Amino acid sequence: MPITATFTDIYTAVCQFYGRQVQLLDSNRFEEYAHTFTPDGEFQHTPGVPPARTHAGIIEELRRFNTRFADDPVQRRHMFSMLNLTPREDGAYDARFYALVLTTRPGVKEPVVGPSCLVHDVLVIEDGEVRNRSRRVEHDHMFTLA
Amino acid sequence: MPITATFTDIYTAVCQFYGRQVQLLDSNRFEEYAHTFTPDGEFQHTPGVPPARTHAGIIEELRRFNTRFADDPVQRRHMFSMLNLTPREDGAYDARFYALVLTTRPGVKEPVVGPSCLVHDVLVIEDGEVRNRSRRVEHDHMFTLA
Amino acid sequence: MPITATFTDIYTAVCQFYGRQVQLLDSNRFEEYAHTFTPDGEFQHTPGVPPARTHAGIIEELRRFNTRFADDPVQRRHMFSMLNLTPREDGAYDARFYALVLTTRPGVKEPVVGPSCLVHDVLVIEDGEVRNRSRRVEHDHMFTLA
Repeated sequence: MPITATFTDIYTAVCQFYGRQVQLLDSNRFEEYAHTFTPDGEFQHTPGVPPARTHAGIIEELRRFNTRFADDPVQRRHMFSMLNLTPREDGAYDARFYALVLTTRPGVKEPVVGPSCLVHDVLVIEDGEVRNRSRRVEHDHMFTLA
Repeated sequence: MPITATFTDIYTAVCQFYGRQVQLLDSNRFEEYAHTFTPDGEFQHTPGVPPARTHAGIIEELRRFNTRFADDPVQRRHMFSMLNLTPREDGAYDARFYALVLTTRPGVKEPVVGPSCLVHDVLVIEDGEVRNRSRRVEHDHMFTLA
Repeated sequence: MPITATFTDIYTAVCQFYGRQVQLLDSNRFEEYAHTFTPDGEFQHTPGVPPARTHAGIIEELRRFNTRFADDPVQRRHMFSMLNLTPREDGAYDARFYALVLTTRPGVKEPVVGPSCLVHDVLVIEDGEVRNRSRRVEHDHMFTLA
């Protein structure tokens, strides 16, 4: 399915991309998740911490982050919503959207809700394939009082 | 609005289909919901229980399930997200997405959140119309520890 | 990006419109939010209260509503989902969808969840631009027992 230059096709391809990408992340398929980034891609999911870089760096960061669940098995879900996609001057796209994290523990029907986040992605589309050049996540509970 | 063979059109038609289908379900319009399935459609929303089959079977199962709310009026909402849609070899589509159930009671502003689910649909598209051939719902809190 | 007459293009344009519109609202950019409505647009977000009208009226209503957060800084997020978009006889579109409000306070990772809402929009599309002619919000916890 080659992606043409129309906005509709690109917006839809990004929705499908995120559907697949998030399900990889929430299935702990970190290698495949890392490969949804460009080879030099940057991934920052913790505010104040320098971004992970390259596929190997992203995999390492996700493994490190998930050690917290080693003795606390959970099923996490990331819900993305309200995608605002705008073309950049360099031919890539800025994607700005909300992400809500849900964490379910065995036998507990109600998930822990949060954090609520604002995500800034830069996406490149090459040969009909969407990939992240970068991802930066802001957490709503860390906002600065004016 | 005939659906052409392009992925963009199909993905969007599925989004619109789910928007309508879910609002039928959450309005207790079970007959119309059942007719969003093929005549021989299968619907399994409780893990471990055999699926309901045919329109009549789906209607009966939804009525049975909802008797629990007979003396406990609620407004339920199903939020689907992160749609990952892939073509199957038989010409149908696999749709895999998240579903979060919200249950609101009269006068209570905060809904009960959960369960969080992973849904596996098989969708057929005939004459420009999307329908479920099957739906299978996994509940996140029932996951098996490895 | 001109919007053609196809349903796919219109549905996608509406998704992008909502992504931008909601982020304006949640950033307290009320003037820009008001301008996502037509000049004579109507906005009713509190059941039982008459709708605000015109850009100036919508801005005033949002400022009034948000005074409640003057001494209680929050980051609000509106999550829209399950868009059901249908053409009207007058050439506009009915959009019916769910909205879930999340309210995060500084230092608190779990947002307050709710209210859960059903939104009825009438959208006009002119010269490739989507705008609200009206918005009416129903709150799930205010439903009437039959």
